[in-house]
Amino acid sequence: MHHFQYQNGALHAEEVPLARIAEEVGTPVYVYSAATLRRHASVFREAFPADTVTAFSVKALSNLHVLKLLASEGLGADVVSVGELERALRAGMKPDQIVFSGVGKRREELRAALRARILQFNVESEAELRTLSEVAEEEGIEASVALRINPDVDALTLPGISTGKKDDKFGIPWERALETYTLARDLPGLKPDGLDFHIGSQITSLGPFERAAERAASLVRELRGAGFDIRRLDLGGGLGIPYADGDQPPLPSAYAEAVTKITAGLDVQLIFEPGRVIAGNAGVLLTSVVLTKHQTTKNFVVVDAAMNDLIRPALYGATHRLLPVAQKEGDPSAYALVGPVCESTDKFTDAAMLADPQAGDLLAFGTAGAYGAVQASQYNTRPLVPEVLVDGGSYKVIRRRPTLDEMLALEE
Amino acid sequence: MHHFQYQNGALHAEEVPLARIAEEVGTPVYVYSAATLRRHASVFREAFPADTVTAFSVKALSNLHVLKLLASEGLGADVVSVGELERALRAGMKPDQIVFSGVGKRREELRAALRARILQFNVESEAELRTLSEVAEEEGIEASVALRINPDVDALTLPGISTGKKDDKFGIPWERALETYTLARDLPGLKPDGLDFHIGSQITSLGPFERAAERAASLVRELRGAGFDIRRLDLGGGLGIPYADGDQPPLPSAYAEAVTKITAGLDVQLIFEPGRVIAGNAGVLLTSVVLTKHQTTKNFVVVDAAMNDLIRPALYGATHRLLPVAQKEGDPSAYALVGPVCESTDKFTDAAMLADPQAGDLLAFGTAGAYGAVQASQYNTRPLVPEVLVDGGSYKVIRRRPTLDEMLALEE
Repeated sequence: MHHFQYQNGALHAEEVPLARIAEEVGTPVYVYSAATLRRHASVFREAFPADTVTAFSVKALSNLHVLKLLASEGLGADVVSVGELERALRAGMKPDQIVFSGVGKRREELRAALRARILQFNVESEAELRTLSEVAEEEGIEASVALRINPDVDALTLPGISTGKKDDKFGIPWERALETYTLARDLPGLKPDGLDFHIGSQITSLGPFERAAERAASLVRELRGAGFDIRRLDLGGGLGIPYADGDQPPLPSAYAEAVTKITAGLDVQLIFEPGRVIAGNAGVLLTSVVLTKHQTTKNFVVVDAAMNDLIRPALYGATHRLLPVAQKEGDPSAYALVGPVCESTDKFTDAAMLADPQAGDLLAFGTAGAYGAVQASQYNTRPLVPEVLVDGGSYKVIRRRPTLDEMLALEE
Repeated sequence: MHHFQYQNGALHAEEVPLARIAEEVGTPVYVYSAATLRRHASVFREAFPADTVTAFSVKALSNLHVLKLLASEGLGADVVSVGELERALRAGMKPDQIVFSGVGKRREELRAALRARILQFNVESEAELRTLSEVAEEEGIEASVALRINPDVDALTLPGISTGKKDDKFGIPWERALETYTLARDLPGLKPDGLDFHIGSQITSLGPFERAAERAASLVRELRGAGFDIRRLDLGGGLGIPYADGDQPPLPSAYAEAVTKITAGLDVQLIFEPGRVIAGNAGVLLTSVVLTKHQTTKNFVVVDAAMNDLIRPALYGATHRLLPVAQKEGDPSAYALVGPVCESTDKFTDAAMLADPQAGDLLAFGTAGAYGAVQASQYNTRPLVPEVLVDGGSYKVIRRRPTLDEMLALEE
């Protein structure tokens, strides 16, 4: 996490001490580094041919200010709802750099995306194809369609975030690809000129990507042989990132090399949907210690962040690196790190190694930029966790903490 | 689910067809029955001695309108944050019927509760005791304290919602009860005149409750023997409810009989913190089928509700009864029921038994009143799911669906 570093024992985001943000904005709070976001965006974009669409997976981190920054770096958007589409458009992303994914797009969502003239609809079922055809006809706007074909490649990731196996809910089975393309060609309003693969998330070896790319390349050739004019190949996202020290997932450059070696000569525009690899290590969740307690056999640190602010540990069993904001002398020992929400599920880890934690100490959960703030809720009537974007020596609150009146406004 | 019944093949909430609510409010939407809430509140309250405080566990279902209804039925509140405290007060709950629970109360939360003159602070650690003492001194307001003592009783429920074992984060270890009461007596501003036990949630047999009550009664006697004037005994919540047909958790009356048999003669005011047992079966989550799809070996129904609207299946592995809003002819077969969110975690069940599901069909997830809407998020930029309260032949939207501008307001 290059832009989250210690300076004189104090953890900084770029040039801003995290302690200053905690003091001025309060905790818990997500803190992102603009420099990291820019670097990740450019490294990823530059690893691929110039005409490649790098469609940031908005669901990973959807804050408008972050999307604006990524738009200015030339990124487009992979959206999964009309809300995300609207975010991407408001952030200035170009419609011809936007793809619409998802297994359950509603009719009105399809309509909004058609009207926005997005690049491509990633269609995941025959039923969706028929609905899209109807809406396209109603609107008089032709829809560019990529069918999401299920390669049945095991992504070797957590079961909860694998998406490319044949019994997942996603995509269209491999063996029905040709007949579904034929249906797409026969339905009015549709132009089936893309192919979409996506095998999962947080994938930490190249093998699954290579196998998927090979399957995709062979399917492009087969479809062209059958008369389909396939112009775009969307290989999805899923590149893993280091959560723990020692994790060494492939670099974007190695990923790009492995994949483009396979797609070279195919004469397709490539589309990628990176999310975690752009945003994950660009953010931390900053929290304060409320108190420590010793139970019968375990020591606990209760922090002011909870499962409603960062649900990945409770939901996926994920672990996040934990960094003390002020480095301390002394030998660390193991603490169970928990939030204040009244259920046992609200636990971040059983083995946080901390030296002499005290009430008021600040801690940062690393690699919290992706799938963190976007999944936050107001469970236990806790205010939605705010977000801060650091850029060089200054920062900006890009999502503020709601007042209690704002939290209750929808119930008036 | 007595007030959710079919009339001429159409599922109703009391006298209102759910199809009408879906048509007028849109889906997904939570629908609650006022009659059920009233019945559950009165059955619970009447099962106990008249001076018992029935402190509704606000975290289970915190909508202001629901709290107002429960307040008018004489219920108080068990709150776990300053936000929940504010809800309870705004709903008209009496301060002397409010207890404040939770492992990580912040200083300002303690202050707000002191100023509100609540009945009791359920204190879970020595550290919290010291902080409460400081704040009470600052405010010049004495705090009535119940120590939450950990009985080390296995609640025999799901690991994620068990809370009374010795290595949970909750409570104070049994063997340190006396020394912690002594500390409470010695600290200024505190009146340690209550005892609090809580062993978990969704407990479906009486045994754990009986064992906990016995432990509590013996501790009350021991504390009195040591000179503490224990006036209130808070036995928490946790009574389970039927999620599936055939589930037969103890009735509140049986629970009350078992517990009061043990506490009779103790001369304490009892406090209970029911949540799920009041709200769970008072609500359904109403959803529409977006599409159906056949994968290689499985049939899928994609609905417009998702894990962000009801996270219990994804988070706890919980299952909810599924009811077709319009009864259909034909033999049901098994479908995987999933939401539109782009991850495999977004699955409600692998084995929904449905007869000929079609796009536009309405389905209701049963027993969704507790820990449903309160845990909803806007993940995938999906609008916060609305809530509706049915009362007899009419209904009211008690939390409306936000507009996109409202969803983005905190990011401006």
